[in-house]
Amino acid sequence: TKMKLPGQEEFEASSAHENAPAGELDSGLGPGPSPDGPSDTDSREVGVPKDPLLFIQLNELLGWPQALEWRETGSSTASLLLGVGEMPPIMLSTSLHCRWVLFEEKLEVGAGRWSIPHVPTVALPSLQKLRSLLAEGLVLLDCPAQSLLELVEQVTRAESLSPELRGQLQALLLQKPQHYIQTTGTRPCWGSTHRRKPSYDEEAPLKEQHQNPLRQRLPPGAEAGTVLAGELGFLAQPLGAFVRLRDPVVLGLLTEVPLPSRFFCLLLGPPMLAKGYHEMGRAAAVLLSDPQFQWSVRRANNLHDLLAALDTFLEEVTVLPPGRWDPTARIPPPKCLPCEHKRLLSQLREVRGLAAPHRIQAEDRHRHGPHAPSPELQRTGRLFGGLVQDVRRKASWYPSDFLDALHPQCFSAVLYIYLATITNAITFGGLLGDATNGAQGVLESFLGTAVAGAAFCLMAGQPLTILSSTGPVLVFERLLFSFSRDYSLDYLPFRLWVGIWVATFCLVLVATEASVLVRYFTRFTEEGFCALISLIFIYDAVGKMLNLAHAYPIQRPGSPAYGCLCQYASPGGNESQWTRTRPKDGDDILIMDLGLINASLLPPPECARQGGHPRGPSCHTVPDIAFFSLLLFLTSFLFAMALKHVKTSRFFPSVVRKVLSDFSSVLAILLGCGLDAFLGLATPKLMVPREFKPTLPGRGWLVSPFGANPWWLSVAAALPALLLSILIFMDQQITAVVLNRVEYRLQKGAGFHLDLFCVAMLMLLTSVLGLPWYVSATIISLAHMDSLRRESRACAPGQPPRFLGIREQRLTGLVVFILTGVSIFLAPVLKFIPMPVLYGIFLYMGVAALSSIQFMKRVQLLLMPAKHQPDLLLLRHVPLSRVHLFTAIQLSCLGLLWTIKSTPAAIIFPLMLLGLVGVRKSLEWVFSPQELLWLDELMPEEERSNPEKGLETEHPFSGSDMEDSELMYQPKAPEINISVN
Amino acid sequence: TKMKLPGQEEFEASSAHENAPAGELDSGLGPGPSPDGPSDTDSREVGVPKDPLLFIQLNELLGWPQALEWRETGSSTASLLLGVGEMPPIMLSTSLHCRWVLFEEKLEVGAGRWSIPHVPTVALPSLQKLRSLLAEGLVLLDCPAQSLLELVEQVTRAESLSPELRGQLQALLLQKPQHYIQTTGTRPCWGSTHRRKPSYDEEAPLKEQHQNPLRQRLPPGAEAGTVLAGELGFLAQPLGAFVRLRDPVVLGLLTEVPLPSRFFCLLLGPPMLAKGYHEMGRAAAVLLSDPQFQWSVRRANNLHDLLAALDTFLEEVTVLPPGRWDPTARIPPPKCLPCEHKRLLSQLREVRGLAAPHRIQAEDRHRHGPHAPSPELQRTGRLFGGLVQDVRRKASWYPSDFLDALHPQCFSAVLYIYLATITNAITFGGLLGDATNGAQGVLESFLGTAVAGAAFCLMAGQPLTILSSTGPVLVFERLLFSFSRDYSLDYLPFRLWVGIWVATFCLVLVATEASVLVRYFTRFTEEGFCALISLIFIYDAVGKMLNLAHAYPIQRPGSPAYGCLCQYASPGGNESQWTRTRPKDGDDILIMDLGLINASLLPPPECARQGGHPRGPSCHTVPDIAFFSLLLFLTSFLFAMALKHVKTSRFFPSVVRKVLSDFSSVLAILLGCGLDAFLGLATPKLMVPREFKPTLPGRGWLVSPFGANPWWLSVAAALPALLLSILIFMDQQITAVVLNRVEYRLQKGAGFHLDLFCVAMLMLLTSVLGLPWYVSATIISLAHMDSLRRESRACAPGQPPRFLGIREQRLTGLVVFILTGVSIFLAPVLKFIPMPVLYGIFLYMGVAALSSIQFMKRVQLLLMPAKHQPDLLLLRHVPLSRVHLFTAIQLSCLGLLWTIKSTPAAIIFPLMLLGLVGVRKSLEWVFSPQELLWLDELMPEEERSNPEKGLETEHPFSGSDMEDSELMYQPKAPEINISVN
Repeated sequence: TKMKLPGQEEFEASSAHENAPAGELDSGLGPGPSPDGPSDTDSREVGVPKDPLLFIQLNELLGWPQALEWRETGSSTASLLLGVGEMPPIMLSTSLHCRWVLFEEKLEVGAGRWSIPHVPTVALPSLQKLRSLLAEGLVLLDCPAQSLLELVEQVTRAESLSPELRGQLQALLLQKPQHYIQTTGTRPCWGSTHRRKPSYDEEAPLKEQHQNPLRQRLPPGAEAGTVLAGELGFLAQPLGAFVRLRDPVVLGLLTEVPLPSRFFCLLLGPPMLAKGYHEMGRAAAVLLSDPQFQWSVRRANNLHDLLAALDTFLEEVTVLPPGRWDPTARIPPPKCLPCEHKRLLSQLREVRGLAAPHRIQAEDRHRHGPHAPSPELQRTGRLFGGLVQDVRRKASWYPSDFLDALHPQCFSAVLYIYLATITNAITFGGLLGDATNGAQGVLESFLGTAVAGAAFCLMAGQPLTILSSTGPVLVFERLLFSFSRDYSLDYLPFRLWVGIWVATFCLVLVATEASVLVRYFTRFTEEGFCALISLIFIYDAVGKMLNLAHAYPIQRPGSPAYGCLCQYASPGGNESQWTRTRPKDGDDILIMDLGLINASLLPPPECARQGGHPRGPSCHTVPDIAFFSLLLFLTSFLFAMALKHVKTSRFFPSVVRKVLSDFSSVLAILLGCGLDAFLGLATPKLMVPREFKPTLPGRGWLVSPFGANPWWLSVAAALPALLLSILIFMDQQITAVVLNRVEYRLQKGAGFHLDLFCVAMLMLLTSVLGLPWYVSATIISLAHMDSLRRESRACAPGQPPRFLGIREQRLTGLVVFILTGVSIFLAPVLKFIPMPVLYGIFLYMGVAALSSIQFMKRVQLLLMPAKHQPDLLLLRHVPLSRVHLFTAIQLSCLGLLWTIKSTPAAIIFPLMLLGLVGVRKSLEWVFSPQELLWLDELMPEEERSNPEKGLETEHPFSGSDMEDSELMYQPKAPEINISVN
Repeated sequence: TKMKLPGQEEFEASSAHENAPAGELDSGLGPGPSPDGPSDTDSREVGVPKDPLLFIQLNELLGWPQALEWRETGSSTASLLLGVGEMPPIMLSTSLHCRWVLFEEKLEVGAGRWSIPHVPTVALPSLQKLRSLLAEGLVLLDCPAQSLLELVEQVTRAESLSPELRGQLQALLLQKPQHYIQTTGTRPCWGSTHRRKPSYDEEAPLKEQHQNPLRQRLPPGAEAGTVLAGELGFLAQPLGAFVRLRDPVVLGLLTEVPLPSRFFCLLLGPPMLAKGYHEMGRAAAVLLSDPQFQWSVRRANNLHDLLAALDTFLEEVTVLPPGRWDPTARIPPPKCLPCEHKRLLSQLREVRGLAAPHRIQAEDRHRHGPHAPSPELQRTGRLFGGLVQDVRRKASWYPSDFLDALHPQCFSAVLYIYLATITNAITFGGLLGDATNGAQGVLESFLGTAVAGAAFCLMAGQPLTILSSTGPVLVFERLLFSFSRDYSLDYLPFRLWVGIWVATFCLVLVATEASVLVRYFTRFTEEGFCALISLIFIYDAVGKMLNLAHAYPIQRPGSPAYGCLCQYASPGGNESQWTRTRPKDGDDILIMDLGLINASLLPPPECARQGGHPRGPSCHTVPDIAFFSLLLFLTSFLFAMALKHVKTSRFFPSVVRKVLSDFSSVLAILLGCGLDAFLGLATPKLMVPREFKPTLPGRGWLVSPFGANPWWLSVAAALPALLLSILIFMDQQITAVVLNRVEYRLQKGAGFHLDLFCVAMLMLLTSVLGLPWYVSATIISLAHMDSLRRESRACAPGQPPRFLGIREQRLTGLVVFILTGVSIFLAPVLKFIPMPVLYGIFLYMGVAALSSIQFMKRVQLLLMPAKHQPDLLLLRHVPLSRVHLFTAIQLSCLGLLWTIKSTPAAIIFPLMLLGLVGVRKSLEWVFSPQELLWLDELMPEEERSNPEKGLETEHPFSGSDMEDSELMYQPKAPEINISVN
């Protein structure tokens, strides 16, 4: 077993050059692999050898018509009783039963469809029988046959058969096989009690072969392998042949898909028990579908190499005990396959007795580790050094940032992000207007978003970022407003000075390259940040709904105050109006019936118009509004939540699900508006100015620098500005790190310093104009990137599409913000949006953000009995009590933050958020580095200052290498929704 | 490979006597298996040999303290670099790493907990290395050792070791192993950055061993097997030993649980690469945990038998290809394991060339097939023959029906079913009162439930059945009431005659043994029935809510009618009252302010009391009620739905989840009442009479036979009675078949005819008293049976508890209905229940019933792309288009039924339900028997009249035997909720 594998040196050499991402399948989906055999120089360069993808199918030889009977009923015993051997051999027919690309698909004969792709399993004896059959049989490597006829002749010539038998066999092998090709809606489905056979069109099988939908899913250059297995009564002894064609050729209708065939395997013999040849054929196909075996067999020089490859396969197989596993169960494809590289290394380790997987682990860690800092975040040590570097780096890409946008995918990206952006602008604008009593509003929100967003897209380091009013800034602005109201300050001028100071502080941060400090914000900090903001959102949304119940009180049956009367000042003064209004209003008769001349039951507005005074306790209450608002609130919240989950449901095609889920907020708002319009109640609506001017009456677009405030306030504004700077810095930079993660494979680099510089400049601009403040928003930016993903189109059954990169350009963002600017003319429509609907969306944002963080998963663990807990990786490595302790510490930090937020000192909360970094640091006294690595991540000092300790912290990963590799290789999803939008 | 397995004859013999249910694990959980070896007579009687359950653990020998280091970090490379061989051998320590009962559990060293049980997987080379080690090593079968010392001496004596080495080895094997025993909350969890080691108490390991919670989960008589594996530097060559002890003895602290050990396996050797001995040890443990191997090895006589058993195991293993499966992934335990019996048969088939699994399949079908008719449903051919047989059968059990109730479990069953019964009584009573305008009501519902239920429990054939007002009867009564109202009939006397006729017809059905016809009601009929009733429930619930919106109109802002005024007849007449009421009511000042003396703003009831007239358009509208009712409706519906799903959530211990889910309706009603009471609005409430008398004013408890109706109506009532008889018959008998299914393992037999007889008599009684009509209710009866399940208490990790039977008795039901009778005094409390809450529960019942049927699953398939469809068994065997066609036919039948239900001829709907049987019959012209077998089930004629065709229909099952056995063995859940309750 210690023999050298064919081609092993090549692997070893290539692994030294490895820089392509491992963990992907070696399916050779890259552009243009040469289909005529692997070129060694090529494969050396790309690391993993790029052999063409192999499509394998198992054709079975079946008796006719008994065979059809047998196959349809699926009972192996029936065919045994009939005695296959007694049938004339020419009456046999080949038929396709199973196929493999990456996973196995079985033909469900009764249902006439391919099964769900599953992990192929074989019985061990089948593999062993196959080995002995191949060992004794014919192995033709680099067979020069150019057609099926030549191939069949070569295969049968070498066999020790009588001429008669040979003729029969050749005829059999040359007949057209029956393929079941899944076409949609072509078969008749009514009125037949006969057994239906798979769609089989005598005239145009070639056409069907070419129309096979599977063909679209295979990459160009894919090759085919065919296994022919079956029981032949006229054969006296088993007949096995394995052929590798020198040049792959399309063997007519032999394969289901018109692909050039590379491998051909023939397994025939006298009748055998328990589906022997079928299972042997499956074993051969499973072998061929194994990438390692395939790789070896493509390079095998003789039978010995072939058997060695088979033995290597056998040494690596995993075995399921028969008493604890039902062999007929189908295992769904695992989320991630063992990386090819790793398999070879473990082989090498065994062969050479060498164990050095460190480099790979380090790479993995770099790739998959949480928040691996970008190379752009290294300090230059010069004033504005980082900014200069950023500008230089981005300038070279500037022209391509526009040319790269010329792709149809960008259109749909623009539509999606545009809708998300105006939803954000409406929601945040409405809430800002609510919070600042009109100092900000929807119009400001639209204008600010358009101006700031477009400017950022043109100048920024990471133009894929979408600027938005984010949760933290909204919370701060609300606090700032109530502060200025408490001290009777002129808000907008005060805010202008805060903005000026923030811009100044941010410039200092850019100059000192403070962005590199972002590495001290571990998940602990981020989760605390996110959870606090989310909770504030939820609390505010519910609070605003309760306020509505106060504004529109509910009338209880016992309340003595009841009714409203319209009373006129002079008894006879309104007589003329009386007669004037009577004809148009039939219900006035009721009023006449009262026999009163100085009072009527006109509704208050009408009453006031006619010169009367509404009198009575219920004149100012509007009934039904409170409960209807609550209904709207709940409806929009629940609808948005439900739509968000449509993405993972089984219903509808994936396109529809994606649209419904992506536009969940928009659809929920539309539903709420529709309900409101349908019933036509006087619910509170979004405040929109009638013309293009600031929402606050009596101010121009430019904010005056002092207003009614004393001059020293412009200096004092530095204090809140310091707090806001902390907030802006944390919000902006954490988002930027998330967006520039290595797993997105961005080619054009990040621009942390340049981004912060742009945000600072825009801060200045928006403060001067009295517009909202803007920061990079995590979720919408990630959605932007997601809508610009480049993926491999063709993908084999059971394999998810492969991620190739992102279309990095400035144009989609720019167009989105230009459209947003144009949408200011939508304003008149917006006044139909009821506020409770916006509160519902607000609640949805808070809940969605809160449920996205790992912290909440750990809080849920507190309520779960250990038995029912999910098999989380961290639970495998950290004792449950320690996990709970960590969660409890996070909860108490959150409680403290919430307490501060509820006091008059609420405005200092950004400082407290920064304090989380200190708390995290002190946790190192409570938890071991291993525990912190699983629960959080490590802070930067440790890695640098203690090299030994840093090495030690690798151990959990090397441990996981043994036990948890499947889980480790799962791609990380963006977890932190720091901006709550 | 064709050699005879040891003990094979025994298996063959026992399989001929097979009548115990297969598909269960052969874990020997039955009472009192003799722990000192299997007795053959015993095993022959019970079919599957009842060997004791085996607990297997793998102890590893680890270096100390380096070993701890190694184990904790999990890196195999570290220990290799340290060089195990250079350590003094006595410094090694044994430590438990993995354990097996049915599935594998790994010790998560870092987290200090046992992993989730999973299917054990081993690498093939480990098994092969183990085989060669055992072949060369020591095999002691029926070793007479009585203690660990003796055992160790025997094992080491036989080895060719130097005396010095032997001493070292003995000392090593005798040292106390480290067990990790999972105790709750005893370990410190604060303030330590040191690595924690598994809880290891020097003083009291024996106590810990005895307190091991795993012990509680193992059945009495369980035995232990220990595998000791490890690398020992001082050994020159591998050392393997396998010992079967003649008498199992507790080997001190060797095993984690204090069980007598039966097997002992030692696998030691010089250092090896890639965890060699650990994996070999795992392979040995997995082998021992395989029931077939264990069975053989318990009977093995020599090394040859042992190796033969291993080879048999190898022949049956399933192999997972390395390139498509990550060997470190953990496979969760399958829902059902391959039945032991089947494995042996397939072996025999291979050995003998014999293929006769027919008997087993027939058995399976009988056991698992849908609605296998009970033997009680065979026609006797005599008048009342079935009834007489039923009475005879049940009479013999009558005393035990009361004695069997003496078990604490019955108390909780009574509580649960009592709460469910009164919830039903309230809901259906409230809805009946609504539907019949008070002819029925909550009081009648309580009284009737108590009387009918108690009487049924005392007399019926199946006393586990709970009678209830069911959906179909409720729908019929509503139609009957509107019919009698349309023709101005006196309802209750008319209803009395309907009841008399129904009782007569039912007697005829009993006499003619019509119950045997129930086999013609296939799933098609049942689903049509259930879907129609559910849809009526949903439609009615929503309709009643909309009616509320009409009764309590919403006030729109534009409506001219506004306000309400209290007007007095004479201007000065109320002056005295005026002054009298003023002091108690401060708001009257407002009225004085109006300056009016003949009008005030008093609320209408107050106004009327003071002699005034409320005038104005809004006097009769109560604001806020409509929306609040809608909120109550939605809240109770959604809350009940959510609570129902709590059962499958991961949160809370399973007891809490069960309680929340079982009492979902009660809790939802309580929540609704609480909300309503909190806000105190005048929502419409449940109508309850103030004293113990019928809800309809002016009638006594006995209904007069004619009332205001003409005499011939008593004859004409036969027509609706015929319809109701059909309905009662279908509802009662379908429920009875579901309750008496074979899988519930009822010992005392069913009583279909007696049950129908009782229902007929109670029909008479309730009609005379003017109480609601009662039929067996499916869901609540199933809940009753479920709460009386007897289950094996001890269950191994990963194995669900085994179902042993049901406590069949009459007492729980009787007590429930006596309590229900007593609860009539609850009536005054019931008037606080708002009607919208009951409508919500009504909707919940309809939705829950509708979603429980397979038909709805197929309707959902219509909306799913083929790719995302679940891997349903029927989709593997029936083409999708045929499935859709079947669903479409069902949908159109339902549409037709609904149309009829919406016309004035609605009352004939029971006839149309019966018509479904004819539709189903004609479906045989459209679908093949195979398709119908998968989509529905077969009708009885085919099985009897066409034996060949009947045989043919076995094929899908024999087909499934090959491919789908896992799915076929899944226990059937009660699917049809025909009664909608």
